[in-house]
Amino acid sequence: MSKDKGFVTEITPQGEDFSRWYIDVIKKAELMDYSPVRGCIVFRPDGYEIWEHMQRELDQRFKDTGHRNAYFPLFIPESFFQKEKEHVEGFNPELPFVTEAGGEQLEEKLAIRPTSETMFGHMYAKWINSYRDLPVLINQWANVVRWEKRTLPFLRTSEFLWQEGHTAHEDEADARGETMRMLDVYTDFVENVLAIPVIKGQKTPSEKFAGAVDTFSIEAMMRDGRAVQAGTSHYMGTNFAVAFDIKYLSRENTQEFCHTTSWGVSTRLIGAMIMVHGDDRGLMLPPKVAPTQVMMIPIGPPKTREQVIAKTDELYAELKKAGVRVRVDDRSDVSPGWKFNEYEMRGIPIRLELGPRDLENGVCVLVSRVSGEKKQVPLDNLVAEVKAMLDEVHQEMFQRALEFRKEHFFSVETLDELKAKLEEQRGFALAGWCGSEACEKQVKDETGATSRNIPFEPAETKTQCLVCGDPSKHTVAFARAY
Amino acid sequence: MSKDKGFVTEITPQGEDFSRWYIDVIKKAELMDYSPVRGCIVFRPDGYEIWEHMQRELDQRFKDTGHRNAYFPLFIPESFFQKEKEHVEGFNPELPFVTEAGGEQLEEKLAIRPTSETMFGHMYAKWINSYRDLPVLINQWANVVRWEKRTLPFLRTSEFLWQEGHTAHEDEADARGETMRMLDVYTDFVENVLAIPVIKGQKTPSEKFAGAVDTFSIEAMMRDGRAVQAGTSHYMGTNFAVAFDIKYLSRENTQEFCHTTSWGVSTRLIGAMIMVHGDDRGLMLPPKVAPTQVMMIPIGPPKTREQVIAKTDELYAELKKAGVRVRVDDRSDVSPGWKFNEYEMRGIPIRLELGPRDLENGVCVLVSRVSGEKKQVPLDNLVAEVKAMLDEVHQEMFQRALEFRKEHFFSVETLDELKAKLEEQRGFALAGWCGSEACEKQVKDETGATSRNIPFEPAETKTQCLVCGDPSKHTVAFARAY
Repeated sequence: MSKDKGFVTEITPQGEDFSRWYIDVIKKAELMDYSPVRGCIVFRPDGYEIWEHMQRELDQRFKDTGHRNAYFPLFIPESFFQKEKEHVEGFNPELPFVTEAGGEQLEEKLAIRPTSETMFGHMYAKWINSYRDLPVLINQWANVVRWEKRTLPFLRTSEFLWQEGHTAHEDEADARGETMRMLDVYTDFVENVLAIPVIKGQKTPSEKFAGAVDTFSIEAMMRDGRAVQAGTSHYMGTNFAVAFDIKYLSRENTQEFCHTTSWGVSTRLIGAMIMVHGDDRGLMLPPKVAPTQVMMIPIGPPKTREQVIAKTDELYAELKKAGVRVRVDDRSDVSPGWKFNEYEMRGIPIRLELGPRDLENGVCVLVSRVSGEKKQVPLDNLVAEVKAMLDEVHQEMFQRALEFRKEHFFSVETLDELKAKLEEQRGFALAGWCGSEACEKQVKDETGATSRNIPFEPAETKTQCLVCGDPSKHTVAFARAY
Repeated sequence: MSKDKGFVTEITPQGEDFSRWYIDVIKKAELMDYSPVRGCIVFRPDGYEIWEHMQRELDQRFKDTGHRNAYFPLFIPESFFQKEKEHVEGFNPELPFVTEAGGEQLEEKLAIRPTSETMFGHMYAKWINSYRDLPVLINQWANVVRWEKRTLPFLRTSEFLWQEGHTAHEDEADARGETMRMLDVYTDFVENVLAIPVIKGQKTPSEKFAGAVDTFSIEAMMRDGRAVQAGTSHYMGTNFAVAFDIKYLSRENTQEFCHTTSWGVSTRLIGAMIMVHGDDRGLMLPPKVAPTQVMMIPIGPPKTREQVIAKTDELYAELKKAGVRVRVDDRSDVSPGWKFNEYEMRGIPIRLELGPRDLENGVCVLVSRVSGEKKQVPLDNLVAEVKAMLDEVHQEMFQRALEFRKEHFFSVETLDELKAKLEEQRGFALAGWCGSEACEKQVKDETGATSRNIPFEPAETKTQCLVCGDPSKHTVAFARAY
């Protein structure tokens, strides 16, 4: 369904304008399109299929850890947002409201959910009676809306797709266990499926979720050195339980408030994945979520064409049967060179070339999108070779992203040093922090960098606050963020 | 998470009040709960999991027939509804509008999608240029909203979940081929997965989709004799293409309008499935979508308990490994009798009982939810026996529904006869129809029955219109419908 059938129009180089590069590749690779509604995008089939693979991988992990899915209403009564004070302050500026329906004005305005936190709270209060009902472990896959002023496809859109887990527990220990378990699930998924190395840690109080006691996050570094929060997991204490009256009869026969958690990831992961892995030739898709893992391109002169295509079709069937997501481009009206560029731009992990000489020798050539390495492999072992190379591509992508992060992760002692570093090169900075909101705010005001999180395993422990010089309470990762 | 841990409270018998029976079972089986927003329900885990199995089965069939998924925005500009005249008339009374967002009044009101028909049209006009781009075969899984005056959980709710396929083609033949192919996909799914026999046919002009040239449907008979439209597939002609300017360069180098189709099924299928199969004991779930297919209940006195439970756990692991959705209820504080009633009410296809005597003999007892048949089976062949019984349960459910439909499908010559029949017993009626809207309307006004569809394969061909007595143009299935 591409509009331009000719050669690839130039993609802006990353070094020239990273944002422009990003928009160029996602449009050209047909992952998305702008919609006529401000800040809302259309997920085109190749963009949406990435999300489908992400969903399948995550959903399996949620089910393996005892969660079930449910579905709660899109609309939330305005009054629900008044119940948890921090929550209302956090979300009110971003809410769209339905005020008329079926040709009539509504008595109470209905918000479109920015999260279903409050609706889960309301229902949990009805469903939970006794410690025997606990824990309640429910996840929801849904669309949510936050009326953003500045939007960026996938990374920040007015409507986006996500999952939100909300769980209720007897006590703090159980709820905190869940909070960390889900942070680990996200880490496993983002690293081992999306090939993105992440920094696990705790958010500072000013950066935590509206209404949470503690928020934990995984943070990823984009190829322009900026951060994307790739997933969050919150321990809510009894805040929402008190606000929504989620009580249970304890083992000691007393009425107690539940301890709750919530955790979520969204389609912004698609944007992060593109910004972590792409290069000047275009997308680079992790094999586990790539809609097409192998693109087969038969080559050679017209006289051997029929024979080569017959073999291509045979190998296609073999790969497909083995569960590889494979496609063939056997068009004769576009050159192999055009196809090579096109599918590199689309980020397909492996290109398979098959020509008449290969056919004679019982081999074909596999080309990796990451390393560009060409490997001649025997046709009678093709499935195993392809699967091995898909694994290799995943590993190479992860390593490449990890190397980049190491090169762009610096350590600073003072605010001036941070400013200088961020002028010089983009990246994350590890620094000491005294714990005061004023110092944190000063970093943000003067550098545009925010505290990403307090890493669980910082490369080193810093001893003094980068702003005031007082003894540091935490070692914090700072970065400019999307 | 059940509120009452005691014996099952009575479910209203179907014969006494079918609607009451329906609400009783879906509440008691914890498939849904009412939400604080009018007409919107919460899909609880057991209700939502049924939808997940439906989705998986349908999605595979869509992909096997060449479709891909995408995602379009929730919001639709008000002006889009003005473009297709019949479409606006069909939907306007049901639209909710967002008029304020982010604390400000919007310049143009945004409708919440009642279907994404118009948004697909708008984007297709951008994406489609040439015959080489066709056909475009895209499906969307999404929530949609129609502000209904009277609602009924699953069957008619203000917000519901569905899939909508929208395709664009070069010509009428190709588009009509798609329309019928998807009607066949729905038929296969509803009959072979949900065990519901359906009547395939064409809608009369007054009952077709707003903006379609022809609408085709599959119709199912509920256990109170009323109809539910279980799926529709529409041939749009060039109506939407003209309205949204979806043109392509033809093989003859001329600009032509595409021929489009659309087709959808929704969570109302959950309601239909319950009303087709349930009985006075509660739900009866088709094995292919039942969240739990087998409930294992260890029985016997305390002294053999440990031994029986150990074996139960072993068999549980074996069944689970074989892909059977199985659960164990080994609680000792509720009686086996209570459990039997509870899981019958929840519609679980097979109950597995295991006691100390069985253990000695190397057998267990399987009990079918449909027939109540008890079958002693050897433990060393358990997986095969369970799988065979799941197939059997499916077949028996389909046959039971088919028998019921046969018994409640009558043939009438006149309107008086139809009235008399519908007084006497509920059901569908086959009758001749002259093709005039006036006669169709008279049937509806005097009996409450609407034309469900013009069956492709009616049991007999009627020769005169049941209202005016003129020669009949079509043999129509009439029924009162949800």
